[in-house]
Amino acid sequence: MKDDELTENVPPYDDPDLPFLIQPSNVSRYEDGRVFILDRRVYPFEVRYEHCHNYEETAQAIESMVTQSGGPGLAAAHGMIQAARASKKARHPLTLLRDAGDRLRSTRPTHNQIRRAVDHLLVEAEQAVQDGVDLETAMIESVERLVRERYDRYQATGELGASLLEDGDTLLTHCWGEGGIVFTVLNAIRQGKSIEVIATETRPYLQGSRLTANAMVDMGVPTTVISDGMHASVLSERVSTFMTGADLITMSGHVVNKVGTFPVAMMARYFGVPYYAFAPGPDPAVRTPDDVVIENRDPDEVLHCLGKRTATPRAKGYYPAFDITPPEFVTGIVTSRGVFGPDDLSDFEVAKPVF
Amino acid sequence: MKDDELTENVPPYDDPDLPFLIQPSNVSRYEDGRVFILDRRVYPFEVRYEHCHNYEETAQAIESMVTQSGGPGLAAAHGMIQAARASKKARHPLTLLRDAGDRLRSTRPTHNQIRRAVDHLLVEAEQAVQDGVDLETAMIESVERLVRERYDRYQATGELGASLLEDGDTLLTHCWGEGGIVFTVLNAIRQGKSIEVIATETRPYLQGSRLTANAMVDMGVPTTVISDGMHASVLSERVSTFMTGADLITMSGHVVNKVGTFPVAMMARYFGVPYYAFAPGPDPAVRTPDDVVIENRDPDEVLHCLGKRTATPRAKGYYPAFDITPPEFVTGIVTSRGVFGPDDLSDFEVAKPVF
Repeated sequence: MKDDELTENVPPYDDPDLPFLIQPSNVSRYEDGRVFILDRRVYPFEVRYEHCHNYEETAQAIESMVTQSGGPGLAAAHGMIQAARASKKARHPLTLLRDAGDRLRSTRPTHNQIRRAVDHLLVEAEQAVQDGVDLETAMIESVERLVRERYDRYQATGELGASLLEDGDTLLTHCWGEGGIVFTVLNAIRQGKSIEVIATETRPYLQGSRLTANAMVDMGVPTTVISDGMHASVLSERVSTFMTGADLITMSGHVVNKVGTFPVAMMARYFGVPYYAFAPGPDPAVRTPDDVVIENRDPDEVLHCLGKRTATPRAKGYYPAFDITPPEFVTGIVTSRGVFGPDDLSDFEVAKPVF
Repeated sequence: MKDDELTENVPPYDDPDLPFLIQPSNVSRYEDGRVFILDRRVYPFEVRYEHCHNYEETAQAIESMVTQSGGPGLAAAHGMIQAARASKKARHPLTLLRDAGDRLRSTRPTHNQIRRAVDHLLVEAEQAVQDGVDLETAMIESVERLVRERYDRYQATGELGASLLEDGDTLLTHCWGEGGIVFTVLNAIRQGKSIEVIATETRPYLQGSRLTANAMVDMGVPTTVISDGMHASVLSERVSTFMTGADLITMSGHVVNKVGTFPVAMMARYFGVPYYAFAPGPDPAVRTPDDVVIENRDPDEVLHCLGKRTATPRAKGYYPAFDITPPEFVTGIVTSRGVFGPDDLSDFEVAKPVF
């Protein structure tokens, strides 16, 4: 199968208006024992899929950061289907599946979606074995349900997000806000609103200038890229709303998101621009920022751009992956169940989605 | 003459402890009718000099952004020496010199140092003609005086800056702060203080990761580079002081500097970290931010990094070169005559240096 054939298949969530990057079958796809993962490190300059022939290769691809954000959870789920297929020849299918789960969870130990997807699928696998149904088929159906649930949630969140935008608004966003931001813009367009987007480039991985900007243009939205330090210049004159995804919301209303979010949120407050963070909900296990461990990534990333050296070879780099925006700079948390003030999260009925 | 021979000559301001990049003879150098300008666009990955055989080539080099910050003023002054040499064969030497001045001023119309250097040298040239002395020699001596004045001012400013740092401090800086920042660190070291520096990379030109970081390492200072959005993470824990150069200070105490300065200054205030801007003084012609026109540079720069495409080809870019930090976020303006509060600039006795 060639890369360009992949995209012609019917995706499990079929909406032709969606940007290429967020169609689930373009993010990660399971087919006859193989998993194909879009390489977000080179997209959109190249549309390249990592071909993984077994769950070990899928785990390695996740470890190599081939995919990010919502990608790793889906790819790990597809890795579990690979394991289910392999388990047909195994004496103890569930043991093999649990080993695969351990391997996939170990790829990115702090990535909650991977952990939850694996845990969920192991429970479903046990049920399938009990029911005596084909494990691979059961896993395929489970993953399709998960994808459907994720996209239904995106759509519900996007409708709420769109209600926060007015015709003629300019939306500023940082990094790649996943379904929340994309479906917000998509729903706003469908409501007949004319929206412009400004995307920060988001160094060092450039998710903003590569992924977000490209997805917005896919939807026909006029899109402008700025460097990460330029937000004051646009917040002071052009921007109506600042919106981002969120990697984690604490019960105290702190937003943990891609490093660089906090400075923009603070500047937005200074210029009277509202800031909304998109998330399934707060994490009940994380009460305050003291419970958050900020992952430090490879400092070399900060010293390079798309593989090219950008810094003097004699300096060190430092790459804290996230920063934490205090609730005083957050207007609202947009979830599929409503928009919550950062101080009202105790009202949020917790029922964490798998991914 | 080869590039590597150039640096072996005795510079007009000879201090072997200075970083390579700030030795005036490495910035721009006049020699026998030719001007050699260090290409800051590729430094430190390449040490490459633009060889200019006449003032027109020097003007073109300045237009092409071969040099920045303090470089264009010095290079333009050297272009005036080239014109003086050429004028020996001219019927009206001063006319040729004035034409050269017009050409050099036109390279970067908003660059005040070029304008002031050219104006100053034209006055000196008139005097030289009146006195009947050799015009080229007179111009060489004038430029050497200007360089000496600039570096004496750097040293005075640096002593004041160093008095604001304590042993063990970590200094955060943005972009390339020219002499103010370099001489501050140099003087702190000479006072026996141990200083660490964190430099933002400063997209799109990467002055921080290429120029500042390299200059700091030249002085033996442990230096860490962060992306432009990471300052909250270091201001919350490691940074003692935030210091930058300033392209312009308004009489109202607003700091006009490389875009990205304002967000860091605001975040510094939030974490109780002082912010000092370095400048010869406020500009009496610029009372408030309303008098400031922010230069928009080539948007393509934001869509590329070191010549490599970083953004989807389908988005636009936007590149406001500067932002304006309000006085409420400025602790002090460090000048060679003292440290002034941003609200106390009316006390500043204006005597603008040439460059």
